[in-house]
Amino acid sequence: MNRKIILFLVGRIVLLESALLALPLLCSLIYGEKCTFAFLITIAIAIAVGIVLTLLGKTTNRTFFAKEGFVIVAFAWIMLSIIGALPFTLSGYIPSFIDAFFETVSGFTTTGASILTDVEALPHGLLFWRSFTHWIGGMGILVLVMAIVPTDTGRSMHIMRAEMPGPIIGKLVPKIKTTAKILYLIYIVLTALEVIFLLFGKMSLFESLVYSFGTAGTGGFGIDADSLASYSPYNQWVITIFMLIFGINFNIYFLILSKKFVSVLKSEELLTYIIIVLVSIGVITVNVMHNFPTFSEALRHSAFQVSSIITTTGYSTVDFNLWPSLSKAILLILMFIGGCAGSTAGGIKVSRIVLLFKSMGSNLKHMLHPRSIESFKFEGKTVKKETINNVGCYLAIYLVCLFAVFLVISFDPFDFETHISAAFACFNNVGPGFSAVGPLSSYAAYSPLSKLVLSAAMLLGRLEIFPMILLFAPSVWIKNKALKKQR
Amino acid sequence: MNRKIILFLVGRIVLLESALLALPLLCSLIYGEKCTFAFLITIAIAIAVGIVLTLLGKTTNRTFFAKEGFVIVAFAWIMLSIIGALPFTLSGYIPSFIDAFFETVSGFTTTGASILTDVEALPHGLLFWRSFTHWIGGMGILVLVMAIVPTDTGRSMHIMRAEMPGPIIGKLVPKIKTTAKILYLIYIVLTALEVIFLLFGKMSLFESLVYSFGTAGTGGFGIDADSLASYSPYNQWVITIFMLIFGINFNIYFLILSKKFVSVLKSEELLTYIIIVLVSIGVITVNVMHNFPTFSEALRHSAFQVSSIITTTGYSTVDFNLWPSLSKAILLILMFIGGCAGSTAGGIKVSRIVLLFKSMGSNLKHMLHPRSIESFKFEGKTVKKETINNVGCYLAIYLVCLFAVFLVISFDPFDFETHISAAFACFNNVGPGFSAVGPLSSYAAYSPLSKLVLSAAMLLGRLEIFPMILLFAPSVWIKNKALKKQR
Repeated sequence: MNRKIILFLVGRIVLLESALLALPLLCSLIYGEKCTFAFLITIAIAIAVGIVLTLLGKTTNRTFFAKEGFVIVAFAWIMLSIIGALPFTLSGYIPSFIDAFFETVSGFTTTGASILTDVEALPHGLLFWRSFTHWIGGMGILVLVMAIVPTDTGRSMHIMRAEMPGPIIGKLVPKIKTTAKILYLIYIVLTALEVIFLLFGKMSLFESLVYSFGTAGTGGFGIDADSLASYSPYNQWVITIFMLIFGINFNIYFLILSKKFVSVLKSEELLTYIIIVLVSIGVITVNVMHNFPTFSEALRHSAFQVSSIITTTGYSTVDFNLWPSLSKAILLILMFIGGCAGSTAGGIKVSRIVLLFKSMGSNLKHMLHPRSIESFKFEGKTVKKETINNVGCYLAIYLVCLFAVFLVISFDPFDFETHISAAFACFNNVGPGFSAVGPLSSYAAYSPLSKLVLSAAMLLGRLEIFPMILLFAPSVWIKNKALKKQR
Repeated sequence: MNRKIILFLVGRIVLLESALLALPLLCSLIYGEKCTFAFLITIAIAIAVGIVLTLLGKTTNRTFFAKEGFVIVAFAWIMLSIIGALPFTLSGYIPSFIDAFFETVSGFTTTGASILTDVEALPHGLLFWRSFTHWIGGMGILVLVMAIVPTDTGRSMHIMRAEMPGPIIGKLVPKIKTTAKILYLIYIVLTALEVIFLLFGKMSLFESLVYSFGTAGTGGFGIDADSLASYSPYNQWVITIFMLIFGINFNIYFLILSKKFVSVLKSEELLTYIIIVLVSIGVITVNVMHNFPTFSEALRHSAFQVSSIITTTGYSTVDFNLWPSLSKAILLILMFIGGCAGSTAGGIKVSRIVLLFKSMGSNLKHMLHPRSIESFKFEGKTVKKETINNVGCYLAIYLVCLFAVFLVISFDPFDFETHISAAFACFNNVGPGFSAVGPLSSYAAYSPLSKLVLSAAMLLGRLEIFPMILLFAPSVWIKNKALKKQR
């Protein structure tokens, strides 16, 4: 294990965070708020920590492998969240550090689960930072590092693989640095477009920015106690459409930019995603029709909630906790599925679902004709047995982690529906669940232990489990010592 | 597809059912009950149907393959349930045929979910038949056919594989007929032992028989509205222990009979099963301690509930619906796991869980060292990649079916916890769920459509999905026509 390179890169990331913190600092300066000091102190701490880590990690050996890639990602995300939590605690708005950590992890992992009972009491600077963490975490901070920091290592792919969601990660262009740059460029342009559309809808610049960050990262933090309920139908539709846009694999946008429209139309994942969204909206609209005065209102709220849940954003325009069981059942299944691979959304991912279904069909055929050899294609390529094996394994680990989280938080005295939907909503980076953690409630009442476990669940979900598990796997660290002894 | 052999064997099974119906007939004669007529008519119908099917299926071509094996099993179980439901409707005690069908499917699949709101109103003959279906379904009626009906085909393994639960099916001895005989002999001896132990506890012969059938098949039908709450602690302990015994792979008992004690001790599935049971009992006992006056009472009820749920029997001594969330969470996970492969219990099966965990470990190692080839052993044998692939695929299909059932029954106006636990409890052949389908409630309030869907779920769970899906797969029937044309 090349420990030096880990320290070095995490140091770089912390320094980058200190730079990113300048934006909320600016915001709190503009509004002349007291929390300015909290940001100044945090930036100072971040710079100090970043410099120490970078110096400790100074090395000429710049090679690293899959193992180091996973550890860097896991370690970086934890450090980011610890430092990112400081402004909340230092300013006194979230006195408990565990609560602040939960809130920040929820931000970076684009979950959007909150422990705040009164979000409107926060100053603009903190609200800006809270939503900005969604935007940073959405595309991934390590992808950002690769895009802007000069690296002379050819192995960055390992980091990309550890941080980007989905079963198959492809480079857009041969050079990883250029890929990262293109991804961030698309990300910035789309976010800017949403801001402009929202400004047209007479939102203030601050509101537009905050909600665009939350949509772009498919996070879900807002600035209003009732989420988006009090905004105009126009703005609700704009956010609906942009949530869906950010739930699509970013490769699709690159294909569009490259004018490869045929490949776009042939994308099985995109097609499946669109079908799932349309069918869900249709069924829920009919199911909740009697809850609303007009059809168009039922359609708007259904479309908003479906987009919000499948992309795991978590915004709401109504309390879907009060909807009929069928609609809630569909939303729960959408939570589980999640968005497309290579998007900012969480969940199992549409491509994994497609792969699982195809593999099921192939297995059934094999059971009927035991001597036949079945293979199938996905996105035009024959799927390797290994890929399917990995997807099945991911599903199994996913369930085990989900059950483990559910078990630990069950020590708290809430009902069943609360616990199971809390575990689900954090693990899949959705945010709000049902019952006591519904869209109009918060996670404040959970015990500190449960909050830590749910924070871990959010990180496991965002980084797709492996990096976090490997960070704590003894063999990652022990084998290294054995190797050292051999030297 | 050899359709003739399918008709022939299903005919044989229906004839066997008519013979098995003689026992409840005898019971109702002894008690001099009116339902005697219902049994006589049903037996007449079964004999007629059986003879017609056998004649229709007369053929010299006795070969069949995996496909036919699955279809026979699925078809036979549906026929068995339709005929088995007749006594309930003909006697007028369950007027709706859909309700009677649900109850009978629940019996044969050893689920134990009931639509009866007052079980104590039923006459002895019907109660006996209801519990006897558990006993028949537990070990599998096709295994019984193979044990007692002379068959000249060497392909019976295909039937065995379709009806016996678990990822890897082994023959105990080279001859399949002898294997089936040994299995049934062990099954009968263990059931008889339980009857004797219960008689010692001053249960009546009728009570002992009914509860032994329910335990042996890990079913859960009883004759009292409060399940086993009003029986003595001795009898509750006897049933606890026998539930655990029937949740163990029957191969273990064969190994004990063959004096291969070392192999028994080396069984990973058995060890895992015992550890899961002991840990769950320990945690739940501590968790529910304050609900009971003494420690021994808390221990007894915890042990009973854990054994009842992990073996998917579904008996209860207390309303565990009122237990704290943690205990309910553990019980839900135990429902999911289920008993050992090759036992009469339902669920995913302990061996599949062990295989999934081992495959996870191997996958994690592979992620760290991409060039290494990881393989692992289970029960002393290296596990084939295909087996793991099948287990992963099974899990995925399992989840899809579970979600589908959950979605359809969500049309009914109950709460979330009811729907999700109803789908879970039927699919895993447990019986009672939580909330409105808790241990002291029934499935009576569900709509006829939901009852049919839940019946299908029970069959899917008992036959481990594939036979049922294949029965309705067009390719099973269409390819046959294509072949015929070629001839």
